[in-house]
Amino acid sequence: MTGTGLFDRGEYEARLTRARAAMAAAGIDALVVTDPSNMHWLTGYDGWSFYVHQAAILGPDGEPLLWLRTQDMAGAYQTAFVARENVLTYPEAHVQNPDAHPYETLATILAERGLAEHGRAGAGRLGVEMDNYYFSAACLETLRAALPGTEIADATGLVNRARLVKSPAEIAAMRTAGRITARMHDVLRETARAGIRKCDLVAEVAAAGIRGLPEAGGDYPAIVPIAPSGREASASHITWNDRPMVRGEATYFEISGCFRRYHCPASRTLFLGSPPAEIRRGEETVLAAIEDALATARPGATCEAVAEAVYAAFRARGFEKGNRTGYPIGLSYPPDWGERTVSLRPGDETVLEEGMCFHLMPGLWTPDWGLAITESFEVTPAGGAPLAEIPRPIAVID
Amino acid sequence: MTGTGLFDRGEYEARLTRARAAMAAAGIDALVVTDPSNMHWLTGYDGWSFYVHQAAILGPDGEPLLWLRTQDMAGAYQTAFVARENVLTYPEAHVQNPDAHPYETLATILAERGLAEHGRAGAGRLGVEMDNYYFSAACLETLRAALPGTEIADATGLVNRARLVKSPAEIAAMRTAGRITARMHDVLRETARAGIRKCDLVAEVAAAGIRGLPEAGGDYPAIVPIAPSGREASASHITWNDRPMVRGEATYFEISGCFRRYHCPASRTLFLGSPPAEIRRGEETVLAAIEDALATARPGATCEAVAEAVYAAFRARGFEKGNRTGYPIGLSYPPDWGERTVSLRPGDETVLEEGMCFHLMPGLWTPDWGLAITESFEVTPAGGAPLAEIPRPIAVID
Repeated sequence: MTGTGLFDRGEYEARLTRARAAMAAAGIDALVVTDPSNMHWLTGYDGWSFYVHQAAILGPDGEPLLWLRTQDMAGAYQTAFVARENVLTYPEAHVQNPDAHPYETLATILAERGLAEHGRAGAGRLGVEMDNYYFSAACLETLRAALPGTEIADATGLVNRARLVKSPAEIAAMRTAGRITARMHDVLRETARAGIRKCDLVAEVAAAGIRGLPEAGGDYPAIVPIAPSGREASASHITWNDRPMVRGEATYFEISGCFRRYHCPASRTLFLGSPPAEIRRGEETVLAAIEDALATARPGATCEAVAEAVYAAFRARGFEKGNRTGYPIGLSYPPDWGERTVSLRPGDETVLEEGMCFHLMPGLWTPDWGLAITESFEVTPAGGAPLAEIPRPIAVID
Repeated sequence: MTGTGLFDRGEYEARLTRARAAMAAAGIDALVVTDPSNMHWLTGYDGWSFYVHQAAILGPDGEPLLWLRTQDMAGAYQTAFVARENVLTYPEAHVQNPDAHPYETLATILAERGLAEHGRAGAGRLGVEMDNYYFSAACLETLRAALPGTEIADATGLVNRARLVKSPAEIAAMRTAGRITARMHDVLRETARAGIRKCDLVAEVAAAGIRGLPEAGGDYPAIVPIAPSGREASASHITWNDRPMVRGEATYFEISGCFRRYHCPASRTLFLGSPPAEIRRGEETVLAAIEDALATARPGATCEAVAEAVYAAFRARGFEKGNRTGYPIGLSYPPDWGERTVSLRPGDETVLEEGMCFHLMPGLWTPDWGLAITESFEVTPAGGAPLAEIPRPIAVID
C-alpha cells in the first residue's frame, strides 16, 4: 500500500524529534534503522523490499537518509517524504551476493557523511538495531570490519519505543483498521459452517481484509490468519489447512485488518455445534479477564498491573496462565504486528500513557483445545477503549 | 498450513544426509539453522512462529533438534517428524525481553549436548546462518559471550544450497503450486476492468490463491501480490492501493500460488485499453528473452549463460538490463520466496543440474512504466520446463 498522504510533514517532524531525543538520551550520534516499520514511521517509505538489506539513517539533524537497493529508488520517490537527494542506493551486484555485502557500501556512506569513522576512534557512537530481523549478524560484522574506529551501540527498540504513544492521526488509522477487522469477523461468522474447507473460509476472510471498506481499502496484515481447530488449537501458531471444518470443534481465528500498514488485531472463537461446559467456562474466564484488564488500563497503571488483572481473573476461575498477555501494536511489517518493546507481563513496570495501544491477548491453551478472544485497545483516562467493535462471545454456529 | 504427510521419512533422511555432507565439506561439526525454510525442509516444522527466536540444530548424527518457544511445542508435535524428546523449548520470559535473550538458553543446550563448549577451545566449529533474517546480530553476540571456547563459522546458505536440486516429490508440490498460480491469473484476467479498485482486484486474486484447487488447498505465499500500475510500475516492490484502475495503464502482477509452503511465482502484465507501441515492443522483447533463456537452461549450462541469453535478447531489441534476472525457488517463508543462493546474473558460474528450479525474471522497468512477464521453470535435459501453464502475452482488457 502506498503510504503517502496519510500524515502531514509536521507529523514526520515530530517523529524525528522524538527519535532524536531518544538517541540523545542513549548517547547515540547516528542511528542505522533497519526495522521496516521504523523506516516507514520515520520517512513514509513503503514497499515489499525488506527481503534485501536496506536502512534509514538518522543523523543529528536534517532529513533521514534512505539507503536502498537501486531498484527500489523509484518506490522511495513515490512513498517517502524525504528529498530525492536523500535517497541513496547500492548497486544490484550486492543483492544476495555472498561475496559483496551491501553494508560495505553503507559503511562508506556513513564515513563520507561524517556519521562514522573508518580509521580513528572518537567519532561518536553509531546505534544499530542489534536484535531486529533485518539486522543480521553479517550486517554487524561488515560494519565492524569496515569501521574499526566507530563505537557501535545497541539501539534495539529505540525507535520502536518512540512509537509507543500514538498521535491522533495514527489512532484514526488504527480505528479504520479496526473497522476492517470487524468486517473480516462478520464474513467469518457468515461463512463458517460444518463441511467448508478451512482454506475456503480463510480465503473469504482474507479477501474481506484486502478489500477493506468502501472509503478505505485494506492492506496486507503483518501476520496471516492463525486459524487452528480442535486439538490443533492446542498450538499457538498453526495457520490453516484444507480439511473440512467439523461439528464439535472450537476454532479460533487470530486476524487483523490493516490500513496503510496500521493494524488492529482481534481474535475470536467459533464453535460448530454446542460448546461443552469446559469451553463455556473458558469463555467466561476470558471475557472476565478482558473486562478486568480494560478497566485497569488507565494512564498511570503499569503493564504488569494489566497482566495481573488477567491472571487474577484466570486464577479466580481455576485456570493458570503464565505467558505474556499483550504487547503494543501500530505500524508493522511481516513477520510481526507487535512493536516488540514492552509487554503486558509480570516484571514490566512500564507506566501506561494516554494514546498507547495494545493487543490484549488472554489466550487459553489446554492440551485438548484452545480459545482465543482478544481485544486491541487504546489507553484512555476511562480505561482501555477497544479499537474495534466485534461481539466477544464464542460464535456458535449450528 | 500443516506440513505433515507430503514427504515420507526417507525423504527427510536424504535431506539430512545432504545437509551433513555440506557440513563436512565446510568443516562444520554442528549447525544452528534459523532460516524457517531450512528448518521446515530438515524437520517438517511449520508455523507462523518465526517472529520469535527459534532454530533447528543439526549435530553429526541422529535426528535434528528443534528449539522453540514453549508455546510452539504443540505445533512442533503436530507438524515435525522428529521425536518429542527432540523438541526443546525456552521459557516464555525470554520472549521479546531485552534483558533475557533466548540464545542464552540455546548456548546451554549446545554445551550440554557436546555441540559447543562454554569454557575450552577445540570443541569443533559451530555453523550459524550469519546473513539470515532470523539470525540477528544479537544472536551472534549472545552465542559468542556464552560460548567463548567455540569457533563460530559462517554457514549462510549451506542448507539453502543443499535444497537447490528438488526431489520428484518437491517438483510435484511446485507443479501443484503452479496450478494454483495459474488459477490466480485466470481470476485476474476475469476480474480486472477499468474502475475496479486495485484492492478489490487483489482481494479476488489472493482469495483464489488461498482456496487453491479442489484437491489441494492453497497456503500463504512468502510475498504478497506486487501490483503496480502506470508510473507506479517504474518501482519494483509497490504492493497495491485502493485507487480505481484506469484505461491506458499497464499493471503488472507478481504473484505466486503456494502449496504446503512450495511456491511457483509468475508475473503477468495487464493493459486496460490498447497498449502503445513501445509497450508492445517491450512485450516482444521479454517474450523472446524467456524463450531464449528457457532454451539455454539445460543441465551443464551456467547461471550466467541463462542471464546472458536474457541480456542478449534485450540488447538485440534496444533495451538494457543490468539487474539479476532470476533466482532459485522452492519451500519458503516470508519475507522472500527466493532461496538466496545462486543468481541468474553475470559472474555466477554455478552449473545447472536437472531438478533445479528457478524464477526467471526478465522484468523491464523504464521511468514511465514497468512490464513483468516471468516464468518459474525446472531444469530438464530439454531445457527449462515451465512449472505453470499461463498465457504469456499482455492481457489486453477493453
